[in-house]
Amino acid sequence: MIAALLDAAAGGDRRALARLLTIAEAGGDAADALVADAYRRGITAHLVGITGPPGAGKSTLTAALAVELRRNGATVAILAIDPSSPETGGALLGDRIRMSALHGDAGAFVRSMAARGALGGLAAAAAASLAILVVAGFDFVLVETVGAGQGEIDIAAEADTTFVVLAPGLGDDIQALKAGILEVADVLVVNKADRDGADRLIADLTFAASLALPPGGNPSDGAWPVPILQTTATTGAGVSVLLDTLSRHRRWLGTTRAGAEQRHRRAGRRILALATQRVTRRLTEAMERTGILAGLSEAVANRALSPPEAVERLLEAAGDYAGASPHTALGAGAK
Amino acid sequence: MIAALLDAAAGGDRRALARLLTIAEAGGDAADALVADAYRRGITAHLVGITGPPGAGKSTLTAALAVELRRNGATVAILAIDPSSPETGGALLGDRIRMSALHGDAGAFVRSMAARGALGGLAAAAAASLAILVVAGFDFVLVETVGAGQGEIDIAAEADTTFVVLAPGLGDDIQALKAGILEVADVLVVNKADRDGADRLIADLTFAASLALPPGGNPSDGAWPVPILQTTATTGAGVSVLLDTLSRHRRWLGTTRAGAEQRHRRAGRRILALATQRVTRRLTEAMERTGILAGLSEAVANRALSPPEAVERLLEAAGDYAGASPHTALGAGAK
Repeated sequence: MIAALLDAAAGGDRRALARLLTIAEAGGDAADALVADAYRRGITAHLVGITGPPGAGKSTLTAALAVELRRNGATVAILAIDPSSPETGGALLGDRIRMSALHGDAGAFVRSMAARGALGGLAAAAAASLAILVVAGFDFVLVETVGAGQGEIDIAAEADTTFVVLAPGLGDDIQALKAGILEVADVLVVNKADRDGADRLIADLTFAASLALPPGGNPSDGAWPVPILQTTATTGAGVSVLLDTLSRHRRWLGTTRAGAEQRHRRAGRRILALATQRVTRRLTEAMERTGILAGLSEAVANRALSPPEAVERLLEAAGDYAGASPHTALGAGAK
Repeated sequence: MIAALLDAAAGGDRRALARLLTIAEAGGDAADALVADAYRRGITAHLVGITGPPGAGKSTLTAALAVELRRNGATVAILAIDPSSPETGGALLGDRIRMSALHGDAGAFVRSMAARGALGGLAAAAAASLAILVVAGFDFVLVETVGAGQGEIDIAAEADTTFVVLAPGLGDDIQALKAGILEVADVLVVNKADRDGADRLIADLTFAASLALPPGGNPSDGAWPVPILQTTATTGAGVSVLLDTLSRHRRWLGTTRAGAEQRHRRAGRRILALATQRVTRRLTEAMERTGILAGLSEAVANRALSPPEAVERLLEAAGDYAGASPHTALGAGAK
């Protein structure tokens, strides 16, 4: 069934695409199988991650990028990860996009995905969704994540090129976020560049970026110097320069040794993140199966047991819960 | 050695306390053993989590709370989790605290902990640090986390009472953060309450809090209705009301059935988070031991292998890497 749906989606069937995305969002073994299947079909799309703190104007910039890409004749899918609650979620971006030039355009596709509280499941669901959008044949897939926590950084690691979008006037503590954010940025974008404080932000970023250069990493080694660009997404100013930079980065990834190394590094991070999520899922399943957590929780709450001791008992009871292969029986522990 | 250090710390030896915190921050088996040891000594302190988005004024509020608690005769430790890079980190809060009335006060203790990029290790290190501060005999331990990502929410779950601090004027998207934040809040604090927009923020929070009530949960069932309080930390306005609310919440936790249920629920979340971290640590160790990640990363980067397939091979190669007990030999897999 999955294979038939993938065939249909690859042929342009948008209902098949939507059904596959629903499977991907549910996560679990079905989503994993789907990703493996999707990967075997080869990949030509370029995945662009767009992340940064709330208020930076990421949604508007994402829409502006999509419009410009369409103007150049490329097809575009947008996956917007929305941390809002299911009750209120998704409407905002959807509304903005609908207002834009993409509405009714067969070469563009927009999907919102609400972030759920589930432990670590979001990045896996996003990864599966991205794999499907790639199979569907879009030239570019833009994934926008709201916020700049670890979950968002994990999702950004799925992208080939990551834009980190900042804006002046987001509060003093924005400085504190830079360290973690700089690590995932291929391009730093100062949006709302017409506002007061943009010059100061650019100066700060330039300084921070100079500190973040990898040891021995400089342009003469073929390293990618993270550019700091200015945009005003509401008017479209700076967007075409941003797309030129995207093309340059794509060439760098595909043709240089340093670019290949970056691709390997990011793939490693993705594998590790996905492995952790899978183990967490098995652990949760084992806990639900054995019903052991309630007793341990009560003991820890009453200080009769320390959390590390509770973890030890939990993992013992779960046996080889972490067995990733479907051929390994859950519960058939080594002990 | 650990036991002797804990004895000394419990007796008021601040150098022993600092050495224990260094062990806790390093994480790993030594930190776990330390926590188990600390728990056996019994717990009387009340742990207060203070979290919320950057710019809300958490550091100032934390200092104001500590000063007020000291005025009431209680001893206080502050653990500030700082996401800044090691190069620039920690200075800000330290400076603010030094300026405050706590400097040179033997009944107060301040420790900053820099957030490292390490996968999931921060919450475990914070939990170990908190356990030690409790052993050291402080009446109140305040843990301040900057940011509102999953890591910070995990740390907040360690607390008995969690204050989520917001402020007007932090950007439009602040709305989007509420859902995840509301889940961990025992008290919502609108700081900088003298600023424009505070009334609107309070109205929004009141509405959001009314949606977030658990199914069937209302005050007549003994549930805790999350209060929304106003403070101006820079002047101290509202801080004593906040402390009264803290006392009420502490009584609720200790004397009602709903309070006991909340303590069990949070303990369960802590155990699960800690178990995930431990498994991730074992997984990372196994990868480093087998050296398998490099080959898998290259295959995934070149699209020769899908990430879920890479994860399967990784977990197979790691065997029962996740064995939590020190008695289980790493690598002695079930297969």
